[in-house]
Amino acid sequence: MALRDEFPVLERVAYLNAGTDGPIPRPAAELAQRELAAELEDGRTWPHFERRMALQADLRAGYARLMHCEEDDVAVTTGTSFGLGCVLAGMDLGPGDEIVTSDNEHPGLLGPLIAARHRGATVKPVPFAELAEAVTATTTVVAASHVNWITGEIAPVELAEVNVPVILDGAQGSGAVPVDVQALGCAAYAAAGQKWLCGADGTGMLFVDPEFGERVRTIAPTYGSFEDASRGLESVLRVGGRRFDAALSREAIAFSWAALEVLVAADLEASMERAADLADTFASALEGAGHPVAPRGRSTLVAFEYPEPAEARQRLAQAGIAVRDLPGFPYLRASVGAWNDESDLERLLSALGAR
Amino acid sequence: MALRDEFPVLERVAYLNAGTDGPIPRPAAELAQRELAAELEDGRTWPHFERRMALQADLRAGYARLMHCEEDDVAVTTGTSFGLGCVLAGMDLGPGDEIVTSDNEHPGLLGPLIAARHRGATVKPVPFAELAEAVTATTTVVAASHVNWITGEIAPVELAEVNVPVILDGAQGSGAVPVDVQALGCAAYAAAGQKWLCGADGTGMLFVDPEFGERVRTIAPTYGSFEDASRGLESVLRVGGRRFDAALSREAIAFSWAALEVLVAADLEASMERAADLADTFASALEGAGHPVAPRGRSTLVAFEYPEPAEARQRLAQAGIAVRDLPGFPYLRASVGAWNDESDLERLLSALGAR
Repeated sequence: MALRDEFPVLERVAYLNAGTDGPIPRPAAELAQRELAAELEDGRTWPHFERRMALQADLRAGYARLMHCEEDDVAVTTGTSFGLGCVLAGMDLGPGDEIVTSDNEHPGLLGPLIAARHRGATVKPVPFAELAEAVTATTTVVAASHVNWITGEIAPVELAEVNVPVILDGAQGSGAVPVDVQALGCAAYAAAGQKWLCGADGTGMLFVDPEFGERVRTIAPTYGSFEDASRGLESVLRVGGRRFDAALSREAIAFSWAALEVLVAADLEASMERAADLADTFASALEGAGHPVAPRGRSTLVAFEYPEPAEARQRLAQAGIAVRDLPGFPYLRASVGAWNDESDLERLLSALGAR
Repeated sequence: MALRDEFPVLERVAYLNAGTDGPIPRPAAELAQRELAAELEDGRTWPHFERRMALQADLRAGYARLMHCEEDDVAVTTGTSFGLGCVLAGMDLGPGDEIVTSDNEHPGLLGPLIAARHRGATVKPVPFAELAEAVTATTTVVAASHVNWITGEIAPVELAEVNVPVILDGAQGSGAVPVDVQALGCAAYAAAGQKWLCGADGTGMLFVDPEFGERVRTIAPTYGSFEDASRGLESVLRVGGRRFDAALSREAIAFSWAALEVLVAADLEASMERAADLADTFASALEGAGHPVAPRGRSTLVAFEYPEPAEARQRLAQAGIAVRDLPGFPYLRASVGAWNDESDLERLLSALGAR
């Protein structure tokens, strides 16, 4: 079966919205429905938790392969924001700490940065391309996006060489572009399950480098975060990523796991290449039609100037074309996945018209 | 339709496990399945988020009624642990702060307490019944369970009179016993959606008193936590409970909302009375059969001594009886809901035998 055929929504909609929320492959929704049916009939007792844990182990393994890291260093979370919040709050940043970030970050990272500033840390926003050179002897940590959510720019490769921990917001990275946390040199990488990986809303992943993890308090662990929870205040948290695991439902884990399986079966690495090619082609076509494209990298996001983007987004939705506007920016943003094809992009181009 | 008939699992299983994970009413699983089907066919674009937000508003309103507070003071979260972690980490407790707690708390509260201690705060565990009198001039905050998860004891009413903020772990409270956050005098109340409210795993609620909330940093806000997220580091968080909202899926919110509707339609207050009566009757019968019951209050938990509880739990499960053991304690714990009846309790009593 061709990848595109796994996604019922693509029969009607030019779905260019994975940067917000991906299209759902049929096996993912159907597995979640079957898990729900089993929970309804059998209840949620021991076999339920065993099933949930087995699915979670499979999902963790899939996320680890995706980030090219050890399973033990991966937490299964509720999403990018949760991972970023946990790590940054857990570092206990305060007076004397300086966080280098870009001037163009997503609220999921802004939130923890604002919280750290509230506690007395200095937050230093710089242009996205200048992140690495902004690191000085006074810098404690860099926290920025891997792929910029507004423009689709890629974080400078020089970040791998800076001598402070680098925490990456991978919401537009994981599943969209190749991710190798070693090559990126990052101490933590937080990403989403529901965007480019087409999984359930409220799922995600967090890589934490083991050495760095020792410096991160676990601020909101769950029952499953503990190795042994029966020793009161002397109870011991698990070693590695699992201490950062969030409480996820069996049906949500199953959903995200099955979606990932569909993508892996279609050769995810090749799909990423194809999507990036499609996005590049689309960006050129937009420029050709007189729609200036925001500076971007080899990514799957294409943001372009368009008059009254919020209204345009609504008009396009009525024509069965799903893109988004970006409040505060003059852009519409198209998210191009391997499930898309030229017909989706032609529908959008045609609806936009030339200027 | 009688409440009991809404739960398919009760046809086969003496399900006494709601203190861990409630039985699921058919309308809840079916609504979640329908929402998933719609997401599969229609994608997750603007109408998806509108539907999600509408369901979330309904769920928030339901949780507010349950806790007898304003909707604006309620966050819809991923569960009790998340709420407790957010509030306690957000208070920036450290050297000079003293947290009074009990010597018998759940890992969901132990986690944030361990984290606070790691930052230099003093954690003072006392017997559950002595929580109020343990508060002195050096105490910063009390954090303890409303209904003790091991024994079913109720937190002392005198906690309402102490002159420091009281943060309650309501995992065994909300949906099990009447909750009035004003009468409890609590600054924050965190509870679960999947236990006594029979909703989706990974859902829950957090009440935060507005005045107290001003002192709590928001450590891991999501996109939806912001009033206006387009102003970079000057972006503004929402006022009230919504700033603590977690990222939940539409299907999970629908699940928990529909489950709550089933319980409300059956008269939740009357159901709580009936369940507490059933639990009292059951506790007496256990004592009569020679199984010593842990000291409990007017709650829906009945913990009783039994030899080799982990093995007994497994043996009972094979006989279609769902209870749990409590690692580190000599008890089996039965969770009695209004969906249970005398036949469930008789099955358990009969399987236990007399001593």
